[in-house]
Amino acid sequence: MSDTRTELGELGEFGLIEHLTKNFNPKREDTIKSIGDDAAVIDRGDHFELISTDLLVEGIHFDMSYTPLKHLGYKSIVVNLSDIYAMNGTPTHVTVAIAASSRFPVEALEELYKGIQLACDTYGVDLVGGDTSSSVTGLLISPTVVGRVDKDKVVYRSGAKENDLLCVSGNLGAAYIGLQILEREKQIWKENPDVQPDLSGHDYVIERMLKPEPRPDIVKALAERSIVPTSMIDVSDGLGSEVLHICKQSKCGARLFEEKIPVDPLVASQAQEFQLEPSVCAMNGGEDYELLFTLSQADYEKAKDIEDLHFIGHMTDLNSGAAIVYPQGELIEIKSQGWKAF
Amino acid sequence: MSDTRTELGELGEFGLIEHLTKNFNPKREDTIKSIGDDAAVIDRGDHFELISTDLLVEGIHFDMSYTPLKHLGYKSIVVNLSDIYAMNGTPTHVTVAIAASSRFPVEALEELYKGIQLACDTYGVDLVGGDTSSSVTGLLISPTVVGRVDKDKVVYRSGAKENDLLCVSGNLGAAYIGLQILEREKQIWKENPDVQPDLSGHDYVIERMLKPEPRPDIVKALAERSIVPTSMIDVSDGLGSEVLHICKQSKCGARLFEEKIPVDPLVASQAQEFQLEPSVCAMNGGEDYELLFTLSQADYEKAKDIEDLHFIGHMTDLNSGAAIVYPQGELIEIKSQGWKAF
Repeated sequence: MSDTRTELGELGEFGLIEHLTKNFNPKREDTIKSIGDDAAVIDRGDHFELISTDLLVEGIHFDMSYTPLKHLGYKSIVVNLSDIYAMNGTPTHVTVAIAASSRFPVEALEELYKGIQLACDTYGVDLVGGDTSSSVTGLLISPTVVGRVDKDKVVYRSGAKENDLLCVSGNLGAAYIGLQILEREKQIWKENPDVQPDLSGHDYVIERMLKPEPRPDIVKALAERSIVPTSMIDVSDGLGSEVLHICKQSKCGARLFEEKIPVDPLVASQAQEFQLEPSVCAMNGGEDYELLFTLSQADYEKAKDIEDLHFIGHMTDLNSGAAIVYPQGELIEIKSQGWKAF
Repeated sequence: MSDTRTELGELGEFGLIEHLTKNFNPKREDTIKSIGDDAAVIDRGDHFELISTDLLVEGIHFDMSYTPLKHLGYKSIVVNLSDIYAMNGTPTHVTVAIAASSRFPVEALEELYKGIQLACDTYGVDLVGGDTSSSVTGLLISPTVVGRVDKDKVVYRSGAKENDLLCVSGNLGAAYIGLQILEREKQIWKENPDVQPDLSGHDYVIERMLKPEPRPDIVKALAERSIVPTSMIDVSDGLGSEVLHICKQSKCGARLFEEKIPVDPLVASQAQEFQLEPSVCAMNGGEDYELLFTLSQADYEKAKDIEDLHFIGHMTDLNSGAAIVYPQGELIEIKSQGWKAF
């Protein structure tokens, strides 16, 4: 080991993974896609297998003071499944590794597993393995999902072309607003434990944060119309960060129209309470687990009636960069504000 | 959640997993084997896919005071691959989730990944994914391996029959003695930090502990002779615990001959220093990552010349239980002394 000491935080989450794995060149012929997309892709003869691993750490990714364990179990599976949908695939099986300190009784882990089971049942996957251990402090959950996709249907982050349409499912920014409300009530409660948290009227945004749902319905709707997106990613770190991933890997630029970014009216009004622009919540918030993808313009007619799908912009050439276009025509460059675990 | 509080330690590691997943009944037709073997088995049409997840937690599974990070990375992959070999399969790809506190600089994780890479290269698997996060304290590694096996070659813990031969590869107890030496030197060092650890002459047992190797050569030797074991498991928790797993799942008893249990002469002599019976180190020690399996008697002639393979006993009917036979004919019942993470 050299004498240099580089702090983990200096590289950020993406930078660190990239740095640590830069010397890992796949050596097997059946490795089609390694690190760098939502899931890895393995050639299994008549189909591609997909595999993705996540990591949820107490105090970093979730706060036990407002996260019900059942919701946490549900979410840990859902965020992992979302990676498979983002490859246009179907998740089939999951494993879960859990480390828990002795602060958690068996009954707490039972709640966690109830959420895991509900997510598995809801999305038609089987839990087939895992490992459970004690930890020195806190709770840590690492789910791994495997799935499959037809070889001619797999979608990477890298396939977008100039003039392709940029689409996103559902609406964005709700999970972020949910988090702001939970954090606000936590602060109030910490300052005065007699005050009960006031979460009334915020069910929708809080549920988007604590119990998100992935979008297999969109994958299905595309398949029914024989549409294969040219690129796809799930919105886990904020729309801005995901658009930049697609741009970088597809070697394109992008134009997003600010007024086209789908934001729920509840989110828009609550964003104002926090003195936030709704579109900023969408761009920088993350944890929405919606699907962001690009379509060839030729597929527009087939795609335009898909429910809950929004056309928010288009891809450009690399040199024009990635930018949001505001209603008055102002152009703001998109910079990564993606969530950092370090 | 009920008001009852059951401590995690009350159930033990195996008991806890069994308890938490008892309501998880596989619903998919392609789930061939779920929780309860070395790996899960999924029907992928022309072959079975295998998947297994492990969890290595600082302070529980490893002690940073005497574990070089490169060795730790290597071992974390190897223990996971061993689960696939124990199904008579071939590992192909791994993912690794790592949580590390800010106490670890980037350079420390680089060392860890060098070990991961060495293990991947040595055993012909590709690292294709993973996640990296900070943790509040310590280091945690969760590897997941996928692999494949021909449908007519998969071996479970449950297939042993009465009169089958019980075989084990390599030798046992070395990792356990290595651990005792490392722990002894750590104590000496803690009492007097000026004393350098004296590990001379102990290279073999310490390497068995810190940098174990799995046994694909045994899987290959069996395949070359067209032998499919009737049951198999890897020795991670001690020979006694693994024999009991095979007995329980195969609904058999077993007789092990104490003098047939392979123990390296170095282990035997060092066991005496610690006032331990060598065979007790083998039975209760664990972390050897050798393969324990059963063969139909009809396969004995084909198997007997396999290098580094030892015939240590045979399976009996369920009612006669599992026991070690000592040279003078004394019978001692085998009880689980398997390592507990809680």
